[in-house]
Amino acid sequence: MREACDLILKDLHGLMEAVRTRAEEHRRTPMIGRTHGVHAEPMTFGLKLALWYAELSRDITRVSRAREVISVGKLSGAVGTFAHLPPSIEADVCRTLGLEPAPVASQVIQRDRHSELLSALAIAGSSLEKFALEIRGLQKTEIGEVEEPFARGQKGSSAMPHKRNPIGCEQIVGLARLLRANAGAAFENNALWHERDISHSSVERVIVPDSFIVLDHMLRRFTRIVAGMVVYPDRMKENLERSRGVVFSGTVLLELARRGVSREQAYEWVQRNAMRAFHEQRDFKQLLLADPDVTRVLPPADVERAFDLNEQLKHVDHIFGRVFQEVAV
Amino acid sequence: MREACDLILKDLHGLMEAVRTRAEEHRRTPMIGRTHGVHAEPMTFGLKLALWYAELSRDITRVSRAREVISVGKLSGAVGTFAHLPPSIEADVCRTLGLEPAPVASQVIQRDRHSELLSALAIAGSSLEKFALEIRGLQKTEIGEVEEPFARGQKGSSAMPHKRNPIGCEQIVGLARLLRANAGAAFENNALWHERDISHSSVERVIVPDSFIVLDHMLRRFTRIVAGMVVYPDRMKENLERSRGVVFSGTVLLELARRGVSREQAYEWVQRNAMRAFHEQRDFKQLLLADPDVTRVLPPADVERAFDLNEQLKHVDHIFGRVFQEVAV
Amino acid sequence: MREACDLILKDLHGLMEAVRTRAEEHRRTPMIGRTHGVHAEPMTFGLKLALWYAELSRDITRVSRAREVISVGKLSGAVGTFAHLPPSIEADVCRTLGLEPAPVASQVIQRDRHSELLSALAIAGSSLEKFALEIRGLQKTEIGEVEEPFARGQKGSSAMPHKRNPIGCEQIVGLARLLRANAGAAFENNALWHERDISHSSVERVIVPDSFIVLDHMLRRFTRIVAGMVVYPDRMKENLERSRGVVFSGTVLLELARRGVSREQAYEWVQRNAMRAFHEQRDFKQLLLADPDVTRVLPPADVERAFDLNEQLKHVDHIFGRVFQEVAV
Amino acid sequence: MREACDLILKDLHGLMEAVRTRAEEHRRTPMIGRTHGVHAEPMTFGLKLALWYAELSRDITRVSRAREVISVGKLSGAVGTFAHLPPSIEADVCRTLGLEPAPVASQVIQRDRHSELLSALAIAGSSLEKFALEIRGLQKTEIGEVEEPFARGQKGSSAMPHKRNPIGCEQIVGLARLLRANAGAAFENNALWHERDISHSSVERVIVPDSFIVLDHMLRRFTRIVAGMVVYPDRMKENLERSRGVVFSGTVLLELARRGVSREQAYEWVQRNAMRAFHEQRDFKQLLLADPDVTRVLPPADVERAFDLNEQLKHVDHIFGRVFQEVAV
Repeated sequence: MREACDLILKDLHGLMEAVRTRAEEHRRTPMIGRTHGVHAEPMTFGLKLALWYAELSRDITRVSRAREVISVGKLSGAVGTFAHLPPSIEADVCRTLGLEPAPVASQVIQRDRHSELLSALAIAGSSLEKFALEIRGLQKTEIGEVEEPFARGQKGSSAMPHKRNPIGCEQIVGLARLLRANAGAAFENNALWHERDISHSSVERVIVPDSFIVLDHMLRRFTRIVAGMVVYPDRMKENLERSRGVVFSGTVLLELARRGVSREQAYEWVQRNAMRAFHEQRDFKQLLLADPDVTRVLPPADVERAFDLNEQLKHVDHIFGRVFQEVAV
Repeated sequence: MREACDLILKDLHGLMEAVRTRAEEHRRTPMIGRTHGVHAEPMTFGLKLALWYAELSRDITRVSRAREVISVGKLSGAVGTFAHLPPSIEADVCRTLGLEPAPVASQVIQRDRHSELLSALAIAGSSLEKFALEIRGLQKTEIGEVEEPFARGQKGSSAMPHKRNPIGCEQIVGLARLLRANAGAAFENNALWHERDISHSSVERVIVPDSFIVLDHMLRRFTRIVAGMVVYPDRMKENLERSRGVVFSGTVLLELARRGVSREQAYEWVQRNAMRAFHEQRDFKQLLLADPDVTRVLPPADVERAFDLNEQLKHVDHIFGRVFQEVAV
Repeated sequence: MREACDLILKDLHGLMEAVRTRAEEHRRTPMIGRTHGVHAEPMTFGLKLALWYAELSRDITRVSRAREVISVGKLSGAVGTFAHLPPSIEADVCRTLGLEPAPVASQVIQRDRHSELLSALAIAGSSLEKFALEIRGLQKTEIGEVEEPFARGQKGSSAMPHKRNPIGCEQIVGLARLLRANAGAAFENNALWHERDISHSSVERVIVPDSFIVLDHMLRRFTRIVAGMVVYPDRMKENLERSRGVVFSGTVLLELARRGVSREQAYEWVQRNAMRAFHEQRDFKQLLLADPDVTRVLPPADVERAFDLNEQLKHVDHIFGRVFQEVAV
Repeated sequence: MREACDLILKDLHGLMEAVRTRAEEHRRTPMIGRTHGVHAEPMTFGLKLALWYAELSRDITRVSRAREVISVGKLSGAVGTFAHLPPSIEADVCRTLGLEPAPVASQVIQRDRHSELLSALAIAGSSLEKFALEIRGLQKTEIGEVEEPFARGQKGSSAMPHKRNPIGCEQIVGLARLLRANAGAAFENNALWHERDISHSSVERVIVPDSFIVLDHMLRRFTRIVAGMVVYPDRMKENLERSRGVVFSGTVLLELARRGVSREQAYEWVQRNAMRAFHEQRDFKQLLLADPDVTRVLPPADVERAFDLNEQLKHVDHIFGRVFQEVAV
């Protein structure tokens, strides 16, 4: 299992490198951030990737710790008493194998250790699920901001030649379900009878290799997807502008509040113009500039500044600094 | 959640102390060790408790790490860009709250952190499940080696006045199922859409308080059970002797092999006498002493030594040393 | 639990009625069907709802069966032998309670019955999860085809006044996770020791009421969402036309094949024009009409017919007939 | 999947036959019934098997229904509209394959159907888990009432020649964990995006064959175990008598109550004698006969009758009649 952990760790590092490269590339590629699936405020594509990078570093920490937790051995006999061999032999054998002797054991190493391992793999799987789900969301036809790599000449769909489907990401999303199911089975394996019953064994023969193989496949496939994914900055810009500026309403709200308008009053003014922009398909900023309630408090130049993308994104470099320098990997 | 973690940690420490006290008390209380539910080789009751102690220390490590992982804050706005507040305010607020600023966030702190927490609680629950299952096994009528504390005057069963049921341990076993179910739901919560959807929220409102409350109840109840459990050393001795010495067959086997008998041959001799002891209800040692194949290789004095309990248990102190001194808690 | 089942069944029927009403309303409201999140072929919004209706009828079947499976009683004593009361009393009591006597029991009714119940609830929850996920998908800003009901004057987001978030559907998606976690705990409850241990009890006290309450809340909330959801047929039409006709490529492919063009050849011709339509933002039908390879085989009138929406949707009424008349509820 | 269901159903029937044979054989083999792992009241070994039989018949019902639920087909195209083929072709193809056309479908058959199947398999697995756990409990050395078949010449344990371990039953207990984990993954597969995403596919490729293969292996192995298990009626009788009659305390309690002693008073008298029997290792019946409080109300002949095993087991035949004649399989 240690070798399998090492492989997972290596591939986690590989994915991190791929993520970092694309994050730097798109550090300042603006796009709309979405909460609840709905446009929220501007961000950059690189920021999404920075978040992935930081989460992968936590996955590495979890898998590394789990690797250490399972790197124990025991040679203390049928019930853990060293009845037939002294502890010194256990120490020698463990040293040879690069293991720590478990301080105490029954017939077997206790399965809370394996539970920790399978949990770490399942959580790493859910990280990849989240990232793959992101790409699936951005590849929806109407959004079209990112696409999985699609080899020239590759068929998209047997029946529908126009389609380019994020099937790699969909597979990764599915496989995460297997990993958490396996972790659930691992949790059940800990409570063995007395000095051990062997019920855990048939379970582990399935879940341990399956989880390692599945996660490693996910990591390798997703690394290729990240390295090769096609990003459409024009489409990101187009989508960002699609809502005619209402994504800056939070800034306007705050600017009004900062100038002494009650939050409730400011909310009403902003929402009223946002709804008009939405329903009448008009530009939000122009509506605000034409609303005397607003302009009485917020001079036109300040309205303009509230719509300044660079102003919104001025802390991106700071975040990159925190993620890529401060997070030890 | 940090306060809840602190409570869990405090109660884990409390349980460890209770376990340690009883472990020392029964360090040399001999009993039969059981694998597959079947008599294996002698051990002591204290050794079981030492194993619990070591596992609880790993639970503390896991919960402590998870506590640290969730002790992060963010004040970076709707999509994590610090569009309206600078990072310095986040830093101030986090410092005041005793949190680390998350290096990067979406609208929310990422849920891999919560998954780690719920896993740690679920694994700790499975540790208690194992310990409680042990007591349930030892309290079976025919075994009768340990009993849950039973208050004087307490009714055992409404219909069967003779019964003393390990209902506390049964409850603990059941509640572990809830904890791992909750961890499974937590794993699903990580893959949110884009800069967050709120699907995790209704789940967390149930699983986070439920898991903390359930585990804390388990810890407190099990601590009382450990502190007050009634141990029957006479019954342990009686059970140990019940199989007329065949539990020493492993030692005999090894002694024969050490003197040059092939393992296969030795196995046959030992099993043949073990089966007679079982079927004819005769003493295994006497059968061996009357078996010329055996005594030709293994002189009577050496046969006697193979049945020496002190010899079998000579490394118990060493194990206690490893568990109670070397495992930092 | 029977009363709780009845409530669930009543609310499932209520949801079906709400779904049916909206399905009839949008039986012929055209929209793009999406596979892999990517435009596939045209369909109608009513068809989605017809599919929900049929699935809900299966949920009703499952919950009804589970209701029957748990509607059993037993009064056969501590280990199921009728040692102190004859079966006739059990029969009388069960008749009074409207229960069937379990043909055989231990101290308790066997928990495979409860597992079936909790599974039925979890599967019904996953149905609602799917439906709610559909609305969340259609409410994404760029798609904008359907919105959860949004009360006039309701605030969308405390910080972003422009937002209308599908928080009801997000909650329903989250709660489905709890239901399946609870089913997992129920599965573990079946294997009790001998004539019963009480480990299942603490689990059931949580999962049985929680699952009923959660599912019933989901049903009621989702019924309100279905009844009040705002559908934007213009937006559906706009999205349908967004890909400039390439969603009809499957029909063109089949028409070519029907006229003797090899599938491979037809695929190449169609994909080539589809890609041009996509990359050059041109109308797919016009490209086909200008492609001599295509028109040599497929006369312009036949190309036109391949883009006829009514032709594509001509079997919708047939499907509605199957779902709303043939599926007994 | 239908063929796999048929195989499971065939093997469920095979197991039922094996269970029925052993149930008839041990219909009147008395043994102690155990609740909470503690002696409760007398029963017969055949009664345990009758309970298994009835549960297996419910498993057959569940798997049969699930088989029907998944026996549907669809040929309605990429989004379920029959855009390119009329429903009549679907009907023909389905008829040929022995399937029902799904009344409505997206690109795929809905996955609530597969969830029902995987649940049915998981619940059947938990039934076998319960049965195997029973044998494991009865094979514990101190109990020794039943043993898994053990081939002559088979080695019990490589290190401990005296051991006969219920490893088949332990494996069955373990494998049930896999089945329920797989059902959990199946539940997650239902909520696909719009007219389908393919995330379910990779999951189903693992869980569907694995669950069928695992359950079928469990059924076959457990059928051999049931057919060949060694039952020790003498040991059952010995254990029944081990508690010196206190297992009849419930009858004594009821007889006292029937004669007008308050339940509380009767409980005190009975418990007091039961505790003496336990602590002083004396015969419970003799203690009662020597207790003037008791004999004043309950004449010696009635005390004797309360300890009559035949009286306790007089309804066993009735239960067998209900299980083996009334339960249609």
